[in-house]
Formats: sequence, C-alpha cells, structure tokens
Amino acid sequence: MKSEKPDTAKDNTCSVPPKAGRKPSDGTIPVKVGQLVFGAKEIVIVAGPCAVESREQLFETARAVRKSGAVMLRGGAFKPRSSPYSFQGLGEDGLKMLREIHNETGMPVVTEVMDTRQVEMISQYADMLQVGSRNMQNYPLLREVGQSKLPVLLKRGMMATVEEFLLAAEYVLNMGNENVILCERGIRTFETSTRNTLDLSAVPMLKRLSHLPVIVDPSHGTGIRWMVPSLSRAAVAVGADGLIIEVHYKPEEALCDGYQSLSINEFDGTMKELDKVAVAIGRDIHR
Amino acid sequence: MKSEKPDTAKDNTCSVPPKAGRKPSDGTIPVKVGQLVFGAKEIVIVAGPCAVESREQLFETARAVRKSGAVMLRGGAFKPRSSPYSFQGLGEDGLKMLREIHNETGMPVVTEVMDTRQVEMISQYADMLQVGSRNMQNYPLLREVGQSKLPVLLKRGMMATVEEFLLAAEYVLNMGNENVILCERGIRTFETSTRNTLDLSAVPMLKRLSHLPVIVDPSHGTGIRWMVPSLSRAAVAVGADGLIIEVHYKPEEALCDGYQSLSINEFDGTMKELDKVAVAIGRDIHR
Amino acid sequence: MKSEKPDTAKDNTCSVPPKAGRKPSDGTIPVKVGQLVFGAKEIVIVAGPCAVESREQLFETARAVRKSGAVMLRGGAFKPRSSPYSFQGLGEDGLKMLREIHNETGMPVVTEVMDTRQVEMISQYADMLQVGSRNMQNYPLLREVGQSKLPVLLKRGMMATVEEFLLAAEYVLNMGNENVILCERGIRTFETSTRNTLDLSAVPMLKRLSHLPVIVDPSHGTGIRWMVPSLSRAAVAVGADGLIIEVHYKPEEALCDGYQSLSINEFDGTMKELDKVAVAIGRDIHR
Amino acid sequence: MKSEKPDTAKDNTCSVPPKAGRKPSDGTIPVKVGQLVFGAKEIVIVAGPCAVESREQLFETARAVRKSGAVMLRGGAFKPRSSPYSFQGLGEDGLKMLREIHNETGMPVVTEVMDTRQVEMISQYADMLQVGSRNMQNYPLLREVGQSKLPVLLKRGMMATVEEFLLAAEYVLNMGNENVILCERGIRTFETSTRNTLDLSAVPMLKRLSHLPVIVDPSHGTGIRWMVPSLSRAAVAVGADGLIIEVHYKPEEALCDGYQSLSINEFDGTMKELDKVAVAIGRDIHR
Repeated sequence: MKSEKPDTAKDNTCSVPPKAGRKPSDGTIPVKVGQLVFGAKEIVIVAGPCAVESREQLFETARAVRKSGAVMLRGGAFKPRSSPYSFQGLGEDGLKMLREIHNETGMPVVTEVMDTRQVEMISQYADMLQVGSRNMQNYPLLREVGQSKLPVLLKRGMMATVEEFLLAAEYVLNMGNENVILCERGIRTFETSTRNTLDLSAVPMLKRLSHLPVIVDPSHGTGIRWMVPSLSRAAVAVGADGLIIEVHYKPEEALCDGYQSLSINEFDGTMKELDKVAVAIGRDIHR
Repeated sequence: MKSEKPDTAKDNTCSVPPKAGRKPSDGTIPVKVGQLVFGAKEIVIVAGPCAVESREQLFETARAVRKSGAVMLRGGAFKPRSSPYSFQGLGEDGLKMLREIHNETGMPVVTEVMDTRQVEMISQYADMLQVGSRNMQNYPLLREVGQSKLPVLLKRGMMATVEEFLLAAEYVLNMGNENVILCERGIRTFETSTRNTLDLSAVPMLKRLSHLPVIVDPSHGTGIRWMVPSLSRAAVAVGADGLIIEVHYKPEEALCDGYQSLSINEFDGTMKELDKVAVAIGRDIHR
Repeated sequence: MKSEKPDTAKDNTCSVPPKAGRKPSDGTIPVKVGQLVFGAKEIVIVAGPCAVESREQLFETARAVRKSGAVMLRGGAFKPRSSPYSFQGLGEDGLKMLREIHNETGMPVVTEVMDTRQVEMISQYADMLQVGSRNMQNYPLLREVGQSKLPVLLKRGMMATVEEFLLAAEYVLNMGNENVILCERGIRTFETSTRNTLDLSAVPMLKRLSHLPVIVDPSHGTGIRWMVPSLSRAAVAVGADGLIIEVHYKPEEALCDGYQSLSINEFDGTMKELDKVAVAIGRDIHR
Repeated sequence: MKSEKPDTAKDNTCSVPPKAGRKPSDGTIPVKVGQLVFGAKEIVIVAGPCAVESREQLFETARAVRKSGAVMLRGGAFKPRSSPYSFQGLGEDGLKMLREIHNETGMPVVTEVMDTRQVEMISQYADMLQVGSRNMQNYPLLREVGQSKLPVLLKRGMMATVEEFLLAAEYVLNMGNENVILCERGIRTFETSTRNTLDLSAVPMLKRLSHLPVIVDPSHGTGIRWMVPSLSRAAVAVGADGLIIEVHYKPEEALCDGYQSLSINEFDGTMKELDKVAVAIGRDIHR
C-alpha cells in the first residue's frame, strides 16, 4: 500500500533559474513603475483598451478608468494578431496618444513591443514595456528589453509551463534589467467554452518560486466579458499583486477583443467589489 | 479589419441539455443534503480525509473539522486508484465508521460509489453519493444513482468539457433524481507543477448555464497542500456554493493523497480566512 | 552549456507496473482471439459498424468487410454516449445479431461492455470484450473482465498517459486474465480540427514498455472519414499489430459516428493500400 | 436519436485564409529549394545536427547523411533555448561552416532565423530560412522573411492549431513570398512519456486545406532517439512531402538535443526503411 502520486508533486517539480528564483524565506521584491509599486501590500489595477483605436476612444476610456480607480493605463499600438487581415494597431500615432493622456491623467502607460527594432522608439512613449504571450520565448526580444531601463511586463505564453515562464524572465534579468513583472493570462487547454483557461494556481506557485511580482489578466484569461468580474475577484483572493483589465467605452464597437472588454460601468462596479475582497485578505486596492 | 475571435466565444459555445440547463433569468435551485442547503447564500464547507483509514484517523479528523466549522464530512471507503497495488479503501467497514461519526457530530456524510452494484449498500450509510472524476462518463453508474433518493455529488472528469459535464449531470437528472451538485476539481493540462489545473472559470460558467449548485475541490485541483488555502479563497471569491477539502490529522502518515491534505491547524486557519472573503462578496460560510 | 531537456526524457519517464511491463529484451507475447493471433507478424484488421443498428445494416456491412479482408468484426450493442438522448444501442438484440453473423462469416466478434452486471451476459455472445475509453479507469469493470475467460480489448482513455494506460491493463492482468490487447484511439488536445489527436508515438512506446499487443483505432482517432485511410497506413508503418476501423454500408444514414465511418468501397481501397505498407515493413495483413 | 458530434467535425472546422488555402480540387504546388523540389512525387529528406558545434562535427555528420541519401542539410547557428545558460549556437561562424560544407556536398542548407535583424545576414549563407516553433506567431519576423527571396520552412508552434498555423503562413505569403513549406513537429499535450506528441493527422489535414508542401520533424516530435525510425516511417506513410531529421556523429556528446539525434548508422538504416515505405505508397525518396 503506497501513495500513487510521484514524490515530485509533493512540493514542486520546477527547476528554478538563479536570478528569477529566490529562497523560500524571502518575500516578493517590489518593482516600481513611475510612482507605482507592484508587489507591495497595495494591489495595482491596470486598465484600458485592448488597442488604441482613436483619440476619442482612448481618452474617454482612460479618463473613466482613472475615475473608477485604475492607476495605470494599458493600450496596444502594435497588435499581434493571428490573421494578417485583422486590425494591426495605429503604431507610433497610437503611442503619441498614450503619452498625451498620460500627461493629462498621470497614469503610467504599458504597451506591447513585438519587434527588437521598436524597443528604442516605444521606450520614448511608454513607462513599462509589455512582452506578449506569443513572444514569451522570443529570445532576441527578451534580451533587447533586458537592456532597457524600463520595467518589463512579461506575459505567460499560452503554452508555457511555470518553469519555462521563469526561464523567460531569466533572459531579461540576466541582461541586467531586474524590473520584471509576471502576468498570468490563461493557458490553452482542451476546454472550448472559454477562450483560455485562467490558471490562478500559477499565482501562488510563481510567488513561492520567485521574488517577482505577479499580476493577472482576466480579460484574455477568460475571453468573455461577463466572466471578468468574478475572475478578477478570484485573482485578488488568490494573492495577485495586480490586475490588467481590458475596458472599452463602447465594447460593441471595438476593433479588437470587444467581447472580452468591460464597459465603463462594468469596470466601475468591479472595482468596488475588488476593494472589499482586497480588504478581506489584508490588502488594499491602490487608488 | 475585423475581430479575430469566432462569434461563438462572444457568449458561450455550449449546447446545454434541457434538464441540467436553465433559462438565463433563473437562478440556482438549491439542493438539500439533510439539513444543509447547497446553492443558497450560505457557502457549505465539506471536509475530511481522502480515505477512511482507521477509526482513530477518521474520528479525530472529523471532530476537528467540525470544530473548525465544517458542516459536512467527506471520506472514501472505496477508492479508485490508478494502480491496483495502492490502498483501495476499507470498504463497508469504512462506511460503518462514517455513519458512527455522523451520529456523533451530526455532519452529513458524502462518500464515493464506483460500482453500480454498491449503490444500494452504500446508500444505507451515506447522505450523499459521490461519482468521482474517473466515472463521470460511466453511464450505467450515472443511471443507477439517478434512481437513488440520495443527492449526488458529481465531480468533473479531468478531461471533460463544461458541456460534457452538464451532459453527464443530465443522465442523473433524466432518471428522476434532481438533486445533483456539480464539483470542479481540476482538469488535466500540459502544466506539470501542479497535479491538475483548477479551472475556476468553470464555476461562473456552470452557474450561468445550469441551475445546479457548484462546489470546488481545491485539494485535487492543485494536489499540493500549501496551495489549498489560497485557491480556497479564490473559489469562494469566484462564486462557488461550497468547497470540499481534504484534511488529515496526520497528513504525513496518510495512505492516500497526504501531500494534498491540510493538517487540522491549517484547515482551521483557512476557515477563518474564508469567512472574511465570503462576507466581502455578500455571502457567509455556513457554520 | 548543458542540454536543456531533463534526463528523464532520455529514455522514458514511465514507471511500468510488473505484470503489464516486460524486460526490454523480450518481445510482444501474442494474444489469441479464437483462431486469430494479435501480436505476431501478421497484422489483424477488425472492422464493422460503430453500433449495430439493424439486421440489414450489420449483415451487409459484415459480409462486405470480410470480403475486403477484415478477419474480425466490431459492433456496439451497448453504446456509451455523451448525451442520454443519443442512440444507446440495441442491447441484447444487437448481440444476437452479432453472434448470428459470426456464425455465417466465421469472424470473431468484439463488442463493448460498460456495466459489471453485463459481463456474463455479453460473454455469451462475444469473442472479445471491449472496455471503452470512458471506462479505462472504471476499476470495478476492469476487475470484472479480469475474471473473464475472454480476451479484453482495452482502449486508452482520451486523457490517459501511457503510464496510466498500462496501470489500467494491470488491473485486468492482476485478476488473472492475461489476454489484454491495448488500443490507441486518440487523445484529447487543444487541436479542434480533428475529433481527437491520434497519438501514434504511443504504439512504439507501449510495445517497448509492455509485452501486450497494440492496435490502433483511426476512426475515433481522427473522427473524419477521409483521414482514416492515411492514418491507417501510418499506424501500420509505425508498428501496430492491428487496426479497428469503423465501416458502414450507408455512412450518411448511420445512427452513430457516420462522419467517421468508411463506406464499403473506401474500406476495400484502404485494405489494398495497407497490404503494401505491411509488406514494406516486413509484415503482412492477415487475410 | 441523433448523432452526438457537432456538424462542424464532419468535414473540418478551420477557416482557411485566402493565400495559404486552396480549392479542394487543386493539389500541392511544389516549392523549389535550389535544385530540390518539395511537394512532388519524390520525398525530400533533410538531415543534420541540431546545432553546428564544430567544423569536425558538422562536416563528418553532413558527409555521412549525404552518403546515406539525405539531399539537404539542417544545422542551427542561432539556437532558441529555454534557458539563457544553455548553448546558444556558434552564430555567423556556424553559418560559414554550413556554407563551406554546402559547397563540398552540394546539399542546400536550412538554418533558423530568430531575429528580424539577422535575416539579411543569414540569407547570405542559407538556401532556406527556418522560422522555429517558438516564433510561429512572431509577426515582425514572419513579415521580414516574407520579403526575402529565399524559401521559408515554417514550423508549427507547439500549441498552435492547424488554423493558426495556416494564418502564420499567410503572413509570409501576404508579403509576397510564396515559397513556404510547413513542418509538423509535435504539439504539447498532457502526455509526458514523449517530449511532444507528433500530430501526424495534421499532415493530411494541412495538405487538404492548403497547397503548401508539408514535411515532418520526428526528432522534435518525439524527443527520443529510438522512436525516430518508426515515426519517420509513419510520416512517409501518412503522406508527408519530406522529413527533417536530427543526426549527430556522436549523439552522446551533443551540446543540444543529443537524446533525440540519430547516430550515423541509425540514420542509414532508417533511410533504407523509408525507401520501401515510400514505394509502397507510390512515391520515392529523393536521392
């Protein structure tokens, strides 16, 4: 009579790389983005549209999410799309709009970089560089952002294990950039009723194995607007250091991912719920 | 320029069977197990050992979880094990012990049934019949428990879509037994750092598609003891109607799943955390 | 500079159970079904309808597949269906028809058993008992067929690892029934363009780890009629000891799995192709 | 009583992009690499080391695979590795060696490009540019090789559906480069006994949906040396237009993927087997 589970599962099976890993006794080491701190007691909410589509769309959305309590702005100017015929983003024009609304609202801006050749240009407009899921193992890009002075938001590949995720972070850290924030955004499984399967167990696992802050993207993680509020609550309850949520002032007209974007009202309601859950676990939502 | 996601994802892609499904305007229809109600405002915590191993192990564990606030007892007497050489359970002797401690503590008992031929015998000792993950598509068994007067706890198969899960429930409902409780317990994915990937998005999805109560098993869902508290909090935050948690008075000596069982102290601490999260979302833990 | 793959992958990561496993130096130990031998030089083709639907359908199909070279007949009388509202099979009437056409054609019959209580009755009509994918970990059923004198066709669960598959076989072998044939029938993955993903690498892996014969089901493995011929060729080329193929005399009218059933003409053409591939690898199709 | 499978599975569920797709009545349109033709009756075998490690290693391996019948050479000079501490390749020095052995043996060379900034430089040495699995959705890179005059070997992402694979090819085609060869190299599943699960059903599916030639990489597809010969036979039998196989003159000393590389003798034996299987299905191995 013996237990049927291999020993390896008793603790964890990952081999953790030296820079992204940490000793179990250490805690999370916070990462600063402008005045904001990820990985401290206060939970940081990043919100904004999937893609920057127009001045009106971005500005209206940004002002609204700030009013509801978001403290950082997301918005894609260069969009990785499965099809070459989908909307690819406004490019540098979008970045300029992001900078302008940053100046108005004070919210730091995170935007995706897809091409090593764009890192320098995008860095003129962004406060944090996002490496997206499809590029989690794009090593030249990881090395390039590893040489940047800006913090990096690294999204988990949809097919990446926790171990591979930490190894990708190691590429950035190993180039000298210590300011990496990890983002769980759903993995690909056999389940088809949701766009991805949000792996909330990755949050405590990553926080145990690594000193890096961990945030959650419930918008891509579910792909369905009405699921975002409940999974956001769960992400806070499980211990995430922040959330990144897609919001659109007119979701039904969005050029990208409208079916998973919250309306302004929905986002406002969600923020109120998150406040309570954060307090219940001894933290706060940064406002 | 068009959205890259198929229309089907905008709402949901499941075809919901007539009895397990419901109209979107309806809410959850509660299921009673003895005096307990699953699916109402109060969240029900089921706890106990993976397997009944001995009188001492069961009784000590049961008394302790009751003291900490569990209101229902779990414990396997017939265990489905991947290997024929693993501990297979105490059989009817285990059931008698479960009944005895029920009489002492008042906690209703849920235990697994694997064989159509055992349903009648097990029903003499149990208050709810559990159909385990490996048997989610064991149709003769589903039909047999569908003829029982006892409520049924149906665990999601580790490879089952939400749609297949509801179709399995339909087999029970279609035989006349309306008292089915669904249990998300982790699905199998490529990720190896956890035993399964707990799919918390299945909770709001199932509650939207069906009137059946939904509970979560964070013990099998993660397979790792130290992850159970945080995923339990997340399960409550996401909207689960209950939790089923493995607790062992001496986890390191357990014959089955000890690496994922909470100690008595750990369970007690978890309950206190769950109280706060439940209140934060406008519910309560039933005590 | 070191290799990035864990050592465990260098050979294989399975822990093989004692009875289903074998020493690397041993070969496959053949299993007899009536006069047929699985696991020898000759490759055995099993064919027939998914479900027995009528006397005409079964008899016409059976005569045709025999004529084209099939030497064993498949046909379900008790069907495991995801929905309780799908066709569930003709039951014992179907079994009687199978026996009758056996008497005419001489082809041994394999049919699925889902319920421990049916094993004795079905054994009166069948030459081999099939345990289907959904029941691969139905341990009472495995133990029951383990006490049968009939050989057992054990299909891999759609989410079962090679190791779990061998452990399921061990349940049968451990009860004293040594005549188990393993069947790869496709696993569940993220890919949606096929019904399942046929895992042909499981064939050489199973044959290396175990002395049991291994056959392939390209019909369920792909779920698409026009893919069956090419995957059948591949299954022979990879080293399968047999194939089990769904054939229907009128696929477009089938009550079950018609979209994956070959027509009689298609099966005949496939058999001719398989002869050549078998010879190319030094084997033959048993005729 | 109705069929339980959704209609979409009856044929296929992919929406095929305009340039990578084709009308069902058309066949494969061959792609030329130097004198070689992929997608005609003759099957093309590409072989060589995972990574170029040294002049001796490359030259000995290249001469040997040519002697055994390979007609094209593979070898990585820039290697995408999960860990930043693994061997990363010899860079341009490796490319020079590849060109030199090309000049001696006449074999065209395929090598991986990971960085948009390297395309021009690598194009001076290579006859075909490989875009690896991790970069299948690296859109700047796809656009860059889409502007190249060299043919492109596009490997399927380990978590990419057939539909996404064709959409990635569409990015290249849409930039004006029509010479794309698709490569199935194994997908990530729950199975752990092999490195990946080689999805041979993708070969007929891709060839039905697209006019592009399709080859198979059994080395990455299995990750285990002794499985490569049997899966190579299966790949030819299923209809692949070519194979790309890792061979090393001293596999046990390889700096990269040695556990999945064939020795020179093993490759030679495999080629003889492939000749027979090719003939059995009415094709030939190009020599």
